[in-house]
Amino acid sequence: MKLVIGDKNYSSWSMRPWVLLKHFGIPFEEVMIELLQPDTKASILQYSASGKVPCLIGGDGVPVWDSLAIAETLAERFPQHAMWPRDATARARARCVSAEMHSSFGDLRSQMSMNIRASWPGRGATPGALADVARIDTLWRDCLAASGGPFLFGEFGIADAMYAPVVMRFNTYQPEISAVAQVYVARVNAHPAVAQWVEEAHRETHRIPSYDV
Amino acid sequence: MKLVIGDKNYSSWSMRPWVLLKHFGIPFEEVMIELLQPDTKASILQYSASGKVPCLIGGDGVPVWDSLAIAETLAERFPQHAMWPRDATARARARCVSAEMHSSFGDLRSQMSMNIRASWPGRGATPGALADVARIDTLWRDCLAASGGPFLFGEFGIADAMYAPVVMRFNTYQPEISAVAQVYVARVNAHPAVAQWVEEAHRETHRIPSYDV
Ligand SMILES: N[C@@H](CCC(=O)N[C@@H](CS)C(=O)NCC(=O)O)C(=O)O
Ligand SMILES: N[C@@H](CCC(=O)N[C@@H](CS)C(=O)NCC(=O)O)C(=O)O
Repeated sequence: MKLVIGDKNYSSWSMRPWVLLKHFGIPFEEVMIELLQPDTKASILQYSASGKVPCLIGGDGVPVWDSLAIAETLAERFPQHAMWPRDATARARARCVSAEMHSSFGDLRSQMSMNIRASWPGRGATPGALADVARIDTLWRDCLAASGGPFLFGEFGIADAMYAPVVMRFNTYQPEISAVAQVYVARVNAHPAVAQWVEEAHRETHRIPSYDV
Repeated sequence: MKLVIGDKNYSSWSMRPWVLLKHFGIPFEEVMIELLQPDTKASILQYSASGKVPCLIGGDGVPVWDSLAIAETLAERFPQHAMWPRDATARARARCVSAEMHSSFGDLRSQMSMNIRASWPGRGATPGALADVARIDTLWRDCLAASGGPFLFGEFGIADAMYAPVVMRFNTYQPEISAVAQVYVARVNAHPAVAQWVEEAHRETHRIPSYDV
């Protein structure tokens, strides 16, 4: 199995399935394509007609693109791992928070784009981005209250992987969040798969100047 | 089971699960909340903490919000219906095109917002929106070529429901699309559940002036 990803420092969508595969100890080969280079599009198109990363190439050679579809497909292919919660009601809720992350929070995405190596406290704090932060804070608190933690639905799973890039944004831009959300942020940062991704982001030498100013 | 939706003329996200439930003949009670009214938010919040429609209230009273999560949850609760393709490879692909629809095409959404009763050929044709149209056209052609049609994955299912609001936008704004895509558009328009939604949109009396200019 191959996972095609972008730079670890910048590629928020790529982080999700990578962290998920690592967490569950599923072996895969990593193919890294640096973003925003003259040949980026052509390189991605060799793997995925979507022209976007991430893309999972299964054992059958068939590309599965889009981070949420990759997560659903992995959950189905590896039923021995509780990627979604085993309880049906919790699973429906985990799909809601994951699909909401997938389709929403446009202001957070554009104002506080992922840049793991950067530290820009207070930047990007537009009303729209702060409304997104507040909604995410509420979602996290509701999930943690219902599950009892330590992760959104108890053990680490797809919903946590979907929000891991948000944790990276909170590290960089440090918007005000509740005490419960701060504890969750610390826990995600300490998660081994997340910590490995972050460490590898720090070791990357490729820079995208327009993203780093 | 209850499905909370917005105005049929405008609420693109609501159309997806409604059409899906109707197509598969699953009985549900419809709760319609007019969008952009002073009490819209409060009314939605009675059903869903997300403050957004659609929201499915299952027999257990638990809200399932977000159209894609509703679709996945229905597929799981009604395994007798092939909401996703039965073939695993086709199913992975159907999830890719559905999740791509869920997270992408921001220009199409903002430039060619759904307004079933309107006819505005040529409007909203910005380069970004046209790039989205081109990507969707390619996706549709690839899926129809692989499945043989008549719908994206053979029989009507979640992927078609996810793109039904796009068909509505194409009716209104009439961007240039391929012959294959035109045939698919006609087929979706003729689908009984879609035709019923459209007919009911035409019968609505509530207008949102800022959307109708
Ligand atoms: N909905 C997609 C979005 C993927 C996406 O936008 N990826 C960006 C990088 S994080 C990309 O591939 N950009 C490369 C390009 O557009 O050339 C997913 O969840 O996988
Ligand atoms: N990702 C959500 C998006 C839902 C959404 O944005 N719904 C809009 C109407 S189509 C809404 O409820 N707006 C009401 C409001 O914001 O007050 C889904 O797929 O269900």
